[in-house]
Amino acid sequence: MKHTDVKEILLNPSLIGTDVTVCGWIRTSRDSKNMAFIELNDGTSLKHLQIVIDKSNFSDISDYMPGGTALKVIGTVVEGAVNNAVEVNAKEISVLGACPGDYPLQKKRCSLEFLRTIPHLRVRTNTFNAVLRVRSVAAAAIHRYFQSNNFVYINTPLLTASDCEGAGEVFKVTTIGYSDKYKSEEEYYADDFFGKKAGLSVSGQLEGEVAAMGLGKIYTFGPSFRAEKSNTQRHVAEFWHVEPEIAFAELDDVIEVAQSMIKYVISDVMEKCPQELDFFEKFMQKGLRNKLQNIIDNDFEVLDYTKAIELLQNADVKFQYPVEWGCDLQTEHERYITEKIFNKPVFVTNYPKEIKSFYMKQNPDGKTVAATDLLVPGVGEIIGGSQREEDLGKLLSAMEERGMSLSEYSDYIDLRKFGSVPHGGFGLGFERIIMYMTGIENIRDVQLYPRTVGNIR
Amino acid sequence: MKHTDVKEILLNPSLIGTDVTVCGWIRTSRDSKNMAFIELNDGTSLKHLQIVIDKSNFSDISDYMPGGTALKVIGTVVEGAVNNAVEVNAKEISVLGACPGDYPLQKKRCSLEFLRTIPHLRVRTNTFNAVLRVRSVAAAAIHRYFQSNNFVYINTPLLTASDCEGAGEVFKVTTIGYSDKYKSEEEYYADDFFGKKAGLSVSGQLEGEVAAMGLGKIYTFGPSFRAEKSNTQRHVAEFWHVEPEIAFAELDDVIEVAQSMIKYVISDVMEKCPQELDFFEKFMQKGLRNKLQNIIDNDFEVLDYTKAIELLQNADVKFQYPVEWGCDLQTEHERYITEKIFNKPVFVTNYPKEIKSFYMKQNPDGKTVAATDLLVPGVGEIIGGSQREEDLGKLLSAMEERGMSLSEYSDYIDLRKFGSVPHGGFGLGFERIIMYMTGIENIRDVQLYPRTVGNIR
Repeated sequence: MKHTDVKEILLNPSLIGTDVTVCGWIRTSRDSKNMAFIELNDGTSLKHLQIVIDKSNFSDISDYMPGGTALKVIGTVVEGAVNNAVEVNAKEISVLGACPGDYPLQKKRCSLEFLRTIPHLRVRTNTFNAVLRVRSVAAAAIHRYFQSNNFVYINTPLLTASDCEGAGEVFKVTTIGYSDKYKSEEEYYADDFFGKKAGLSVSGQLEGEVAAMGLGKIYTFGPSFRAEKSNTQRHVAEFWHVEPEIAFAELDDVIEVAQSMIKYVISDVMEKCPQELDFFEKFMQKGLRNKLQNIIDNDFEVLDYTKAIELLQNADVKFQYPVEWGCDLQTEHERYITEKIFNKPVFVTNYPKEIKSFYMKQNPDGKTVAATDLLVPGVGEIIGGSQREEDLGKLLSAMEERGMSLSEYSDYIDLRKFGSVPHGGFGLGFERIIMYMTGIENIRDVQLYPRTVGNIR
Repeated sequence: MKHTDVKEILLNPSLIGTDVTVCGWIRTSRDSKNMAFIELNDGTSLKHLQIVIDKSNFSDISDYMPGGTALKVIGTVVEGAVNNAVEVNAKEISVLGACPGDYPLQKKRCSLEFLRTIPHLRVRTNTFNAVLRVRSVAAAAIHRYFQSNNFVYINTPLLTASDCEGAGEVFKVTTIGYSDKYKSEEEYYADDFFGKKAGLSVSGQLEGEVAAMGLGKIYTFGPSFRAEKSNTQRHVAEFWHVEPEIAFAELDDVIEVAQSMIKYVISDVMEKCPQELDFFEKFMQKGLRNKLQNIIDNDFEVLDYTKAIELLQNADVKFQYPVEWGCDLQTEHERYITEKIFNKPVFVTNYPKEIKSFYMKQNPDGKTVAATDLLVPGVGEIIGGSQREEDLGKLLSAMEERGMSLSEYSDYIDLRKFGSVPHGGFGLGFERIIMYMTGIENIRDVQLYPRTVGNIR
């Protein structure tokens, strides 16, 4: 079906005066005495295209009015009366698909809560048109950022027999499922697809390190899974994860890449999605554009964990969770640091080793590890990263202290045995940065089909 | 660790005469009377950087010779003696990580079979450096192709309660796994994470259609899973899948997008990976470059299934599987069509409806559907696509004929109820096109960690 995208018609002034074929769905329509007007959208643009109908040329326009109806229109592109917008004066209209009166999106504005009950239709709203386009542009920007900096995109396996220890609860994968045939776990898994217990990856980091030891600089961008039963605005069972890993790098280098990547992605979205950001500024978060511009214009803060604890202890605020050296930072602490003290993103660095993972580089002080979390005003943690322990002996003792099985991690240990190098990386929760850029507060509203405990469709 | 990528040193002539810091692993080394030479690689380039050591400046070079050792070198970039290559004359060398004698990659050339036993180390070989870089460049090209044509990148869920009927065996996902606690399947799944049976997606198509009905043109690029126990060179349990879906499109439009995407990706890899293609031409497949150029230069064939059957019936070849109208094409038939008759990619179209899926558009002849498979010489099918049935009544009768549950597909059916439009799309097995571009014959060798029955790490 040869036709012209709505986006092209709206953005390309050379089409004015020409005839085009345009397809789309009716978003709104209004009928007056001699004329009728349809706001048509084909999904390529947040802005609709106005179709102008001179009723004297059409015997009956009632088919062309119900919201949700799919039309094909042939007409002439003309300059519109207002806002320099172009319009199409209809010559021929045909209905591709009618839309009956029980269409759930007839109402003018639906709440995000209501829209979650119709995930298969909510993509037809302005909000999801805008969110999903920002998501797409941001994903493309992430690829462009890494590719242009000599990173190799790799796909780490999602089906895995190991777990990235401590990262979260793991879904099991099986071809058996329920069965009363097996007398023991051993028998069951011996008969399963992989012949042993398998699960869904919570992080590609360990395999990312494997790849970085051959390709130098790599990044993953794919799904990760957490079987956590928490029901918060910030957690889902399936999310997209960006995990670069950099050979010949120390914590400073990891922080530098994280900061420049975030700035690049936000700049790119601001450049490519001006209408979408106007929409979010208007309907989701006042001050959104200033907030994003502020990110681009300023260096992020780098704050030692020990210093952060001091600042929190000296704060004239009563926290629900007490603050002392060695504790994990709670949301209230993170918000105080990013929103009250610095009002910008903050890399907190060098956490106590007891609250961080076995693979993180042990600092010379014997107490902390070269880890960093990036905390962002309004959203909280969006990045967690570290330099990795490259010393074989120190890695082994950290694993032994935690009672981990060395044989299960023999591949990982080999990386420290054969040509080990300083290296590090981070993980970005992709949905978190989309929430930040759109002002949308519930992670369920930045995914097409969110998965949470008890909720699958 | 400030340093310069090997790729930059090799490609940037302005560095000649300057001092650089370069890091990498020793690929090979040789020692002569007064001089020693190291081929250093940091993963950013298939080509190594030669480090030249004047032995009179170093007391003992034995640490700098074992393959696999990680070094940091400070030295001067100079023009090399041969092939216009640049070299680095070493001033200071330090060992970042030693590599003991039991390093499995000491041997000069390892077979692909052997390398499959050490997936965590094989990324350090030339072959996997080249394969994974081509894979990365091709992935970036796919994103660029779709983004520049107004497609929105979406992420369809991998955790799913439905299956894209007939596409393949499904892995189950559970937080329970083995248990002797439950008396029935109902009890078991009622207690599971999602409160019902869930599995891993075999295709994002159905959700892709949902998204296209809002966003017009979308593509997915993510993993799909098949729990098939077949052990072939072309199948794995986890693969990456590219699935565009296009609103206001008929079969011709789907074919046009598929062809132009394939040509774009191959052109881009030829432009950005000349060294890698030279390597594959030399070690994997003679004639590779000609084969790829041929793809770019010629239109693909479009061949009606009925005509294909005639051609096969008239062939002076004895096929193992007999050919008659209504049969599915076997590999031998596909190869005959693409390799013997046309010697180029062929879109076979309009298959008998009995051998295709319920969602495909029924042609007016009452016998065939508007489906297409793209068959490619040497690899076989790499794309399967179709126009989708947009007529509610026809869709429902196709589902009823197959005994499918309408209530499980109510979201999908709604798409035909509310503003239905002609649309279509296709699925590309990403690994298949990587195999085609590299000449690598086993799909296990174009993934970092392949997953097959009985095989997980």
